[in-house]
Amino acid sequence: MTAGTTTEDTRSRLLATALRQFTLHGVEGTSLQMIAADLGVTKAAVYYHFKTKDEITEAVAAPALAEFETVIDEAAAQRTRGAQIEHALVGFVDLVVRHRPLVALFNSDPGIQRAIERSLKGAENFKTRMMSVLVGPDPTLADQITVHVVLGGLALAGGGEENAEIDDETLREHLMAAGRRLLGRPRRRSPRP
Amino acid sequence: MTAGTTTEDTRSRLLATALRQFTLHGVEGTSLQMIAADLGVTKAAVYYHFKTKDEITEAVAAPALAEFETVIDEAAAQRTRGAQIEHALVGFVDLVVRHRPLVALFNSDPGIQRAIERSLKGAENFKTRMMSVLVGPDPTLADQITVHVVLGGLALAGGGEENAEIDDETLREHLMAAGRRLLGRPRRRSPRP
Repeated sequence: MTAGTTTEDTRSRLLATALRQFTLHGVEGTSLQMIAADLGVTKAAVYYHFKTKDEITEAVAAPALAEFETVIDEAAAQRTRGAQIEHALVGFVDLVVRHRPLVALFNSDPGIQRAIERSLKGAENFKTRMMSVLVGPDPTLADQITVHVVLGGLALAGGGEENAEIDDETLREHLMAAGRRLLGRPRRRSPRP
Repeated sequence: MTAGTTTEDTRSRLLATALRQFTLHGVEGTSLQMIAADLGVTKAAVYYHFKTKDEITEAVAAPALAEFETVIDEAAAQRTRGAQIEHALVGFVDLVVRHRPLVALFNSDPGIQRAIERSLKGAENFKTRMMSVLVGPDPTLADQITVHVVLGGLALAGGGEENAEIDDETLREHLMAAGRRLLGRPRRRSPRP
């Protein structure tokens, strides 16, 4: 194992540990010392990777945000409106299901919400583009509210404690059904292979 | 003005002030002293009404919770399934719209979420009954997830900062349309008088 691999590995484990500590104590109630202790390293080892808790919080959310951006890019590149909506909805639901602990944290913690807002600074673009692939480039107020209800509802239900025991495939299927109904999309004819 | 009226009035203003301070600083970041200072009274005057911040937090949420319970009772008393769903949905949306600042706080603050859980302790009944009026007494997993998506989505969109400038009537109308679509209900033929 090279030193590079070890460093990268420590960084990944550090972010996983930070997410666990944030979930237990909230972003506000978590210190760098608590993350270091849980990980079994010194505070200096944490500082090697991140200077502040803000940096850690942003890094915890970064992979999911990057995936979300890719989903929007790919959706926008689809040729029909139907395919755009389908791609955006499938991608968003998949993200929510795979990142449940992060989504659960986002649903209840202003600290992670602020970190995500900082990361998206200047990316008002981001929300506008998601809106655009779901309801078109000139959304009415009704369209905008529908998008808020569907994205918010899917994230809350997907990250919800009451659904934590449901396996990924089942949760994905039910969230997709709710999302399609809300966006007025036809039900899928058959599940993907 | 009698002393009784003044006391009641102080209690109401205290709860309104507490909600404002909670919104600004979070429940966790708000002290009894901050509430007293904002209200222009002494800390002793606050203690006259409430012994702890937990008591204040629960009292801030209590009126909306009581109204929600009434909505569920009235919905359950309707004679047809359609009327039950309609009553529960109209009542829930109306609650969300009228209590937007509280709903917004609930959407992002674990402190108020915990206070509401404490208030509902032993009232698992509460969620079960709302589920029952919306999707019947034996909900499938799909039904349960639909209810989470619709109630969560309506609360998030209704309390959302991006919709804060929308007037009550317009917001109510669009949230109802989204809720009906998600629950597979027909659109209303005409607005209520």
